[in-house]
Amino acid sequence: MSSQTFELLILGSSSASPTSERNPSAQLLNIAERFFLIDCGEATQIQLRKFKAKFQSIDHIFISHLHGDHFFGLPGLLSSMHLLGRKQDINIYCPKELKDIIDLINKFSDTRFNYKVNWIFTNDDGFNLIFEDDKVEVFSFPLKHRIFCTGFLFKEKPLLKKIDKYKLEKYNISNADIMLLKKGKNVINKDGELIKNELITFDSRKPRSYGYCSDTIFHEELTNYINNVDLLYHESTFLNDKKERAEMTFHSTAEQAAKIATQAKVKQLLLGHFSARYGNLEQFILEAKPIFDNCVLATDGKRISI
Amino acid sequence: MSSQTFELLILGSSSASPTSERNPSAQLLNIAERFFLIDCGEATQIQLRKFKAKFQSIDHIFISHLHGDHFFGLPGLLSSMHLLGRKQDINIYCPKELKDIIDLINKFSDTRFNYKVNWIFTNDDGFNLIFEDDKVEVFSFPLKHRIFCTGFLFKEKPLLKKIDKYKLEKYNISNADIMLLKKGKNVINKDGELIKNELITFDSRKPRSYGYCSDTIFHEELTNYINNVDLLYHESTFLNDKKERAEMTFHSTAEQAAKIATQAKVKQLLLGHFSARYGNLEQFILEAKPIFDNCVLATDGKRISI
Repeated sequence: MSSQTFELLILGSSSASPTSERNPSAQLLNIAERFFLIDCGEATQIQLRKFKAKFQSIDHIFISHLHGDHFFGLPGLLSSMHLLGRKQDINIYCPKELKDIIDLINKFSDTRFNYKVNWIFTNDDGFNLIFEDDKVEVFSFPLKHRIFCTGFLFKEKPLLKKIDKYKLEKYNISNADIMLLKKGKNVINKDGELIKNELITFDSRKPRSYGYCSDTIFHEELTNYINNVDLLYHESTFLNDKKERAEMTFHSTAEQAAKIATQAKVKQLLLGHFSARYGNLEQFILEAKPIFDNCVLATDGKRISI
Repeated sequence: MSSQTFELLILGSSSASPTSERNPSAQLLNIAERFFLIDCGEATQIQLRKFKAKFQSIDHIFISHLHGDHFFGLPGLLSSMHLLGRKQDINIYCPKELKDIIDLINKFSDTRFNYKVNWIFTNDDGFNLIFEDDKVEVFSFPLKHRIFCTGFLFKEKPLLKKIDKYKLEKYNISNADIMLLKKGKNVINKDGELIKNELITFDSRKPRSYGYCSDTIFHEELTNYINNVDLLYHESTFLNDKKERAEMTFHSTAEQAAKIATQAKVKQLLLGHFSARYGNLEQFILEAKPIFDNCVLATDGKRISI
């Protein structure tokens, strides 16, 4: 654990139709107090309230694709943000057609938001940086589904190196050069001598990362994009008993998700997007574990800290 | 109470934004096992599940207007009906623009329902019969809101008269004429004599009716359409402390709803569409009762039998 937050809250874990236990896809990721909403199935705003998340803190919304269970909650969320007084911009990363839908709804309801929506359209052309600030970067990458669909990779930026303060004095280094050292540079000290960075600094922990893959057929090329992530969410709509149905509908099974996790050498696998036909979700863990041991279930309300 | 069902289930009672206690507008009306869904705010399909209503039994959906809190649950409900195997037609009574929204969503998600949608477009041209079968008729009528909006009146058809079986024999009436008597006609008996209807029959109970008015500014002309209904739902978004805000946003207060109920001589008033600013709803009853005594609150999950 690090002092910088990196926490995922599951808002919905069902595929297609909600069940009495599970809402459609939505997740809230907090990295260093940046709040990223990932997909926005129906009733996401209700789930945000239920799990005490402040939805006006969300500045970035990522929509993987335009099947309803991934975006039918967006019009209501945007409307509530407006009605409850939002003024600050919101950034929506999504297939371009989503803007047409929101525009049409606003036209017919004679609504004009009091805040600005910045639309950033995703495409299926490889691995793209779609968001970046001083602490976080987000990439989109193509999934293989019935319609255009992308996954998302959320990464902390490399952290600044830590400094051995005792050695600053020992090597007679000016305070003005501390930031250069933290960034890994060598410096010239007050005596005009070159001081190598590794004499003064040591590495911080490694940046953490989260990969989100929903919805997709079993597709090994994905591993190129989510290699070595700390946490991988990979859809497992079905169990292996419905492997043919998974293939036909461009979804995956728990075993297939585990194979991707193994090949990509991720640290932990999060299974979700469960078909309403399954009541007992433990079967998903039983199917995945022999292939990839460190796996957990996405259930509504679950929080996972990395 | 009658052997024929006439029951209303409140699925959502909030205005604009949902709260932790209240979902946006939606009601399910059962008249003689015809299930009418009235408005369909976000998460209506989840509320239907929660309150154990069989949503595949719904064949008729009425949408008053295109503010999101009255229809954002429709795309998800239609999608779930499709995914869960619906084959029978659904009839949607709504402003015509709603079809454009649903068509656009289906186009971008590459979805074609396995059932047929019959669109019946409402208009603001007075009192119109929009549905009729052997037991029920439904009318639309204009409300006065910021955008085009209609109310709905649900009525049982006049019931057949009841027959005094002892008198059938006494007056020597043929069995073939019973239906004529039930319909209130006079008949000629086996002896060729004219038998007046009132000698043989007595009236059944009066047909019951339900009027739905959401959303509207205080508008006395409404009373023309919902005169004498057994139950009137009239929106009361605000209390009188926000009377100016009510007028500005084309909504009503509890006192205004009670005035409409009094003028229309209805039997019972149902208040709903409460602004999220109000926690304690008893205030609405306190405000309405001095003007119209028989009033109740719409709260999520409440059932009212007429």
